[in-house]
Amino acid sequence: MRTVGIDLGGTKVMAVLVENGEVLAKAKQPTPVTGGPDAVITAMVAAARKVDPGGTAVGVGIGAPGPVVPGSGVLPAAPNLPGWDHDVDVVGRMSAALDGRPVKLDNDVNVGTLAEWKLGAGRGVDDLLGVFAGTGVGAGLVLDGRLRQGPRGLAGEIGHTFVAFDQFREAPVGRGELEDFAGRRSLQRWVEVAPHAESALMRRLMGRGRLKSKAWADGVEAKDPLTLRLVNRASSALSAAIASAITLVDVERVVLGGGFAERLGEPFRERVEAEVAERAFAGQTAPVVAARLGDTGGAVGAALLLEHT
Amino acid sequence: MRTVGIDLGGTKVMAVLVENGEVLAKAKQPTPVTGGPDAVITAMVAAARKVDPGGTAVGVGIGAPGPVVPGSGVLPAAPNLPGWDHDVDVVGRMSAALDGRPVKLDNDVNVGTLAEWKLGAGRGVDDLLGVFAGTGVGAGLVLDGRLRQGPRGLAGEIGHTFVAFDQFREAPVGRGELEDFAGRRSLQRWVEVAPHAESALMRRLMGRGRLKSKAWADGVEAKDPLTLRLVNRASSALSAAIASAITLVDVERVVLGGGFAERLGEPFRERVEAEVAERAFAGQTAPVVAARLGDTGGAVGAALLLEHT
Repeated sequence: MRTVGIDLGGTKVMAVLVENGEVLAKAKQPTPVTGGPDAVITAMVAAARKVDPGGTAVGVGIGAPGPVVPGSGVLPAAPNLPGWDHDVDVVGRMSAALDGRPVKLDNDVNVGTLAEWKLGAGRGVDDLLGVFAGTGVGAGLVLDGRLRQGPRGLAGEIGHTFVAFDQFREAPVGRGELEDFAGRRSLQRWVEVAPHAESALMRRLMGRGRLKSKAWADGVEAKDPLTLRLVNRASSALSAAIASAITLVDVERVVLGGGFAERLGEPFRERVEAEVAERAFAGQTAPVVAARLGDTGGAVGAALLLEHT
Repeated sequence: MRTVGIDLGGTKVMAVLVENGEVLAKAKQPTPVTGGPDAVITAMVAAARKVDPGGTAVGVGIGAPGPVVPGSGVLPAAPNLPGWDHDVDVVGRMSAALDGRPVKLDNDVNVGTLAEWKLGAGRGVDDLLGVFAGTGVGAGLVLDGRLRQGPRGLAGEIGHTFVAFDQFREAPVGRGELEDFAGRRSLQRWVEVAPHAESALMRRLMGRGRLKSKAWADGVEAKDPLTLRLVNRASSALSAAIASAITLVDVERVVLGGGFAERLGEPFRERVEAEVAERAFAGQTAPVVAARLGDTGGAVGAALLLEHT
């Protein structure tokens, strides 16, 4: 069966047409910065029509930032989406605009995990953790062969788990959550609070803009001490949170993806995997493998929502 | 239906006969310290016969320390059980000794959580975390109305999740896991490594033996500064791990039990609950309620294994 998948992000709307796990068409457009939810929904409808002009798809799946209460079809206020400041019935509105065809909505990282599980690096296991380290850090869980959503759609928010409980009220950046050490947004803030003498290279790479993943890879390449310290701390915090998740819910495999992790590549993944094994309870670790689907994973996973939830 | 439940602990074997959630008979005996698994199995058979002399129970459930691979019936080497240094087919041997009646085996904290969920403070929700803080710290998870075991039986080992990732290789006690801050065994070690001037009261309460939960309650009562600091740090580490679990798997309620937490009572529970709420991601917390079944909870939960797994 053919389905359309849409990955709704803060900067772009990516759409794909998928059949039997193959991407037949792909389209990308910027997320509207004005017009709020109305403009975003219009853009998503246009993207769906662009990849499926004949209307052959049986339905549309959407991955979006933030917790989605299972079955609600509602995307609550999302700080990463321009002007998305209240609950919106995304499923109802999209379905109405698409001749009543079924529409499903889930969290973007959940659908990214679904894609890796069905078509990527997570194939063949029933219990999987997908971790995506980019601007922030998110995760999805497959337990007993089902994508875990949780009663409030919170499941998988690994970036907000506490890896440094004693820094809750006194950290220079954040409050001791994984994302505070391993998300690109926070990593930039650590550079900003570092003494100028230590952070010269990273400040130069930053200029007036954002420290992109490439800048972090360049800093590692140049053996810049601050970069190495922050990146190694990121991998250590990630390994702690991953080892904790393995121990708390028992998964057989971990897929590691996201722009930051993917740009740092194999050495970073190896370092995380080795430290996860070292931290494992009673020697019970799990392999940490690289995500395979790259930046279309979210849209492909959204397309799979019609079949797998 | 009538079932026997056995809670196999490091110091005692507790057995109950249960029907419709009512405890009809109860028996307790010390865990044999010599004779290894053979002696322990003999003691469990005797305990089952003692609470059910007429053999009216349809089967026997056992809760035991350590991960149990679902369906295996095997209890691996368990450091807390005297002489239990290799895998033992507990289900096969118990069933053979009990005229072939069905026997089920699971982790002791999982069955404690099952009991609270079916008969205690966890009734009425489909997604529950049971946390038990005593000598160590363990937990059980109910997800989507089912006790989560995990492919390797690891699920729920919250005591081994990392709450202080940066202390992995340099902590005075442990390696930054929850249990290192909130388990009674580790709390005693923190007293032992503290300067004598600070730890005079707790050293006196300890004598040559162990610091029992009552000693911690007495130290709090006396407003001993070291006790207060360690107990407050325990509640903070617990709240971090609980908030992380709520965020990672999404549970609606948390049951807090175990000898240490129950002895410190309502003020401790309130403190944990308040800090869990403060740490919650996007305001999505969960109530933390006191366990209700006390020290028979494990045995009662083991009896429920016959009905609910």
